Amino acid sequence: MATDQTTVRFGIIGCAEIAIKLCKAISRAPNATLVAIGSRSMEKAVKFAGDNGLPEKVRVYGSYEEVLEDGEVDAVYMPLPTALHVKWAVMAAEKRKHVLLEKPVAMNVSEFDHILEACEANGVQFMDGTMWMHNPRTQKMKEVLSDAHRFGQLQLIHSCVAYNKGPEFLTHDIRVKPELDGLGALGDIGWYCIWAILWAFDYDLPTSVLALPGTVKNDGGVILSCGASLHWPDGKLATFHCSFLSFISFDVTALGTKGILRLHDFIVPFDENYGYGSFWEASQVDFGKSGDDKRWYPGANEHRVESVELQEVLMVGEFSRLVGAVKRGGKPEKSWGTLSRKTQLVMDAVKDSIERGYKTVEVITG
Amino acid sequence: MATDQTTVRFGIIGCAEIAIKLCKAISRAPNATLVAIGSRSMEKAVKFAGDNGLPEKVRVYGSYEEVLEDGEVDAVYMPLPTALHVKWAVMAAEKRKHVLLEKPVAMNVSEFDHILEACEANGVQFMDGTMWMHNPRTQKMKEVLSDAHRFGQLQLIHSCVAYNKGPEFLTHDIRVKPELDGLGALGDIGWYCIWAILWAFDYDLPTSVLALPGTVKNDGGVILSCGASLHWPDGKLATFHCSFLSFISFDVTALGTKGILRLHDFIVPFDENYGYGSFWEASQVDFGKSGDDKRWYPGANEHRVESVELQEVLMVGEFSRLVGAVKRGGKPEKSWGTLSRKTQLVMDAVKDSIERGYKTVEVITG
Repeated sequence: MATDQTTVRFGIIGCAEIAIKLCKAISRAPNATLVAIGSRSMEKAVKFAGDNGLPEKVRVYGSYEEVLEDGEVDAVYMPLPTALHVKWAVMAAEKRKHVLLEKPVAMNVSEFDHILEACEANGVQFMDGTMWMHNPRTQKMKEVLSDAHRFGQLQLIHSCVAYNKGPEFLTHDIRVKPELDGLGALGDIGWYCIWAILWAFDYDLPTSVLALPGTVKNDGGVILSCGASLHWPDGKLATFHCSFLSFISFDVTALGTKGILRLHDFIVPFDENYGYGSFWEASQVDFGKSGDDKRWYPGANEHRVESVELQEVLMVGEFSRLVGAVKRGGKPEKSWGTLSRKTQLVMDAVKDSIERGYKTVEVITG
Repeated sequence: MATDQTTVRFGIIGCAEIAIKLCKAISRAPNATLVAIGSRSMEKAVKFAGDNGLPEKVRVYGSYEEVLEDGEVDAVYMPLPTALHVKWAVMAAEKRKHVLLEKPVAMNVSEFDHILEACEANGVQFMDGTMWMHNPRTQKMKEVLSDAHRFGQLQLIHSCVAYNKGPEFLTHDIRVKPELDGLGALGDIGWYCIWAILWAFDYDLPTSVLALPGTVKNDGGVILSCGASLHWPDGKLATFHCSFLSFISFDVTALGTKGILRLHDFIVPFDENYGYGSFWEASQVDFGKSGDDKRWYPGANEHRVESVELQEVLMVGEFSRLVGAVKRGGKPEKSWGTLSRKTQLVMDAVKDSIERGYKTVEVITG
């Protein structure tokens, strides 16, 4: 429909590495275009534009404010350090810019509520940058998990997300600076674990959270590695571990009464550039199916899910579709903010549990 | 060497399902032979002998005592309910029978110490029935984990072992009867998780254990599902989950600073009947190796490890080799008992943590 074809004009504030990916995604999404970028200095902004071959039409600013003042900008993508989110996301909303915010969305849910309130008050769309949610594989996995005949009742999720970028990262990266990204690994990648757990359990919040002893922090108190156990009154369980100190792992395992689903690349499919993503599933239904009596268990079925576009492009497309609807007089879609808030709530509880010496913390849903 | 060819004459007490597997293993092991079986009733013993086509030479007894009194029996395999282990294993040792005992070895480490003391006092060999330890794949995985160049330092183990045999099992099986197998899923399959964790960490005991909230017990107080987190002062971590309520899962993931190792069938290789077992490993060393810029990460390497025999046959063979050495005047090998004891110690700590309302419990190594 022609009315769906509103092109959303993006500004980017902050020239972090992830912004490179988003520049490309904005240029590939059919309903988005990049019109401005801003960095803390003109020099950095110019260099970013040059390094990434941005078209001449893209205005280059030496401050974040100028992007927000640019009347042509509909929406801003913000790959800023987490500590700066509340200030700049609120300001963007107040300037009536739609907000695509990198994760974690804030230092805590109270800050995030300011952002959501500003978006609400100013009628702008909010979405965070959790890209894997926009991959078609994610929807397909949900179908498998929801198939009670095959999978039974989902009982347990375990997620482990780690990477190890070495000493340089651990000393100098923004993600380990207390004043910039004080949540460290919990915010950067624990975010994914928590979201995956909530996603699998249909966003039913756990009632309590227990951080697991063994958190590693740097001298500034930033979490480099931690884990937690999440509990629901109906017996559902989840555990996760996130770390900047271990080899790369993007694992989710979902265990049900009658089936199991596993994948090792849930954040970014290894094979995304080939146009698909895979996951593995086995269930009671398969037993004996292979007709092979030598294997005592048939192993798992690979499910390959085709994807016409990279997940970041699909994310930009979906965000732009929602923004387009608002531009045409509709209301912002609130569900993305709700999901971000639930993830942040659980993340806050994990942090609280760590700070309270690994006490069980209730998740306050108010 | 001819001196290595001592044939060990086995008796089996208890005609549990697992005894069928061991009968076959004893018949296949080159240094073992079955000479007697005993059940609580002659009727059951005769039926077992008939059902399994045991040779006529195998003496069939209607009691356990008679097997232990049989002068021709060198060693007994005991697939008895856990609560009966201490009585019968001690009695076997006192009758100078070498002891191959099903896992879990006892209801608690204090009971197990009685067994070890009796074996020591009577100069008999002890081993428990943890079969996967005898699979050549296990040794190969150890080599991978120990390769500091590829794998770096091992940091985290996660193991999930589950199966769901349905309502009949959950109501009537020995493994859910408080008076017979009061440790339930923790004893039956948590045993494997704990052993795998200790194995991976070179049997360095954790200093503390924290059971994770959410234990499911039956009306008799038997654990149907539980989990725990294990901690070492040098930062090593492990989590496990064991359950009689979920789909089959025999997972171990080992995460290091530079590598990851995963398998989903560590207790019994899916492909064992084809003569091999697999595991998957990836490491920093592999990055870019594939020369394939479309995959952002090269995935994991499958390691296939050939096995000339089923792991239970290798276990019987190894036990018989040790018994043979004792019969020829050597001393019993104590290391198997030490490993069983470490596993039992950690299992006791998990149980203690559950009973104390999920308090952290120190592992007492005395």
